[in-house]
Amino acid sequence: MSTRFQRRIPEGEDRERLICGDCGFIAYENPKIVVGAVVGEGGRVLLCRRAIEPRRGFWTLPAGYLEMGETVEEGAAREAWEEARAKLALEGILGVYSIARIGQVQVIFRARLAEPGFAPGPESLEVRLFEWGEIPWDEIAFPSVRWALAAWREGRAAVAGNPPEDARGMAGL
Amino acid sequence: MSTRFQRRIPEGEDRERLICGDCGFIAYENPKIVVGAVVGEGGRVLLCRRAIEPRRGFWTLPAGYLEMGETVEEGAAREAWEEARAKLALEGILGVYSIARIGQVQVIFRARLAEPGFAPGPESLEVRLFEWGEIPWDEIAFPSVRWALAAWREGRAAVAGNPPEDARGMAGL
Repeated sequence: MSTRFQRRIPEGEDRERLICGDCGFIAYENPKIVVGAVVGEGGRVLLCRRAIEPRRGFWTLPAGYLEMGETVEEGAAREAWEEARAKLALEGILGVYSIARIGQVQVIFRARLAEPGFAPGPESLEVRLFEWGEIPWDEIAFPSVRWALAAWREGRAAVAGNPPEDARGMAGL
Repeated sequence: MSTRFQRRIPEGEDRERLICGDCGFIAYENPKIVVGAVVGEGGRVLLCRRAIEPRRGFWTLPAGYLEMGETVEEGAAREAWEEARAKLALEGILGVYSIARIGQVQVIFRARLAEPGFAPGPESLEVRLFEWGEIPWDEIAFPSVRWALAAWREGRAAVAGNPPEDARGMAGL
């Protein structure tokens, strides 16, 4: 981040923005969209072991930032290809999770493999299918991965938001 | 937009970004999240007539850009207050629509009024409840408003994505 940027309230707005002291460019910081999928295959779920920080070596869903010009469906399919060399058939949205602290909204799909086969992409050390009882809960990269897996397991018909605070504590989510 | 910004591919990335030729600041352009709600009240739906461009004078849902530090639920409630002076009780996500051409993802909730009363906020000329048969379809601001109203009317249990291209044509969506 350039040191030329300062936080101040632009004229006509009601909150601080990041503004270049030199040229006046306003670098609006907007929440970012993460898209991903819980990919089920015969009762097992596909997880990727992260090759990159943060949480290198921990297990996660194939997921990443939505790019400009993509639909959420296209983004989720692209990420599954990039991280797990998997071709997905999407089956609807499983959850929409807000991680407000870091300005992130995650749109997670339920999916299955459209074609057999998967393999680690450059950002994954390993990709494999886990039976529910085999999932390494202590080595899951992010809480939202646990939320999505729980929603998948419950087979919820309607889309889930963040779990209630109580449920998070009780289920170790 | 400052003329100092140029489009080029930063080292280690795979697509063009907007980079300041002066200081190297990369202004990542990410898709933006719009949050809003179809607010039902005794079979009627609440719409706002826009006081601002684009589409000034046309009818829309209470909706707007999610801000940093908000959950999608908080953002949808804030927008309903800002645009319609309405306090919402949210009832789950109705649809997640991607407007890829303009880099927008809309998360639209089903809601009802948590307290009686509503009134135009500064960005609305008028706010009112419409019976389904009264909705001014020719004066709706954006196609996604029609998609969300159609999903609300159908009372879909599961979350909707963009309607199929065919359905959009057939239903005039």
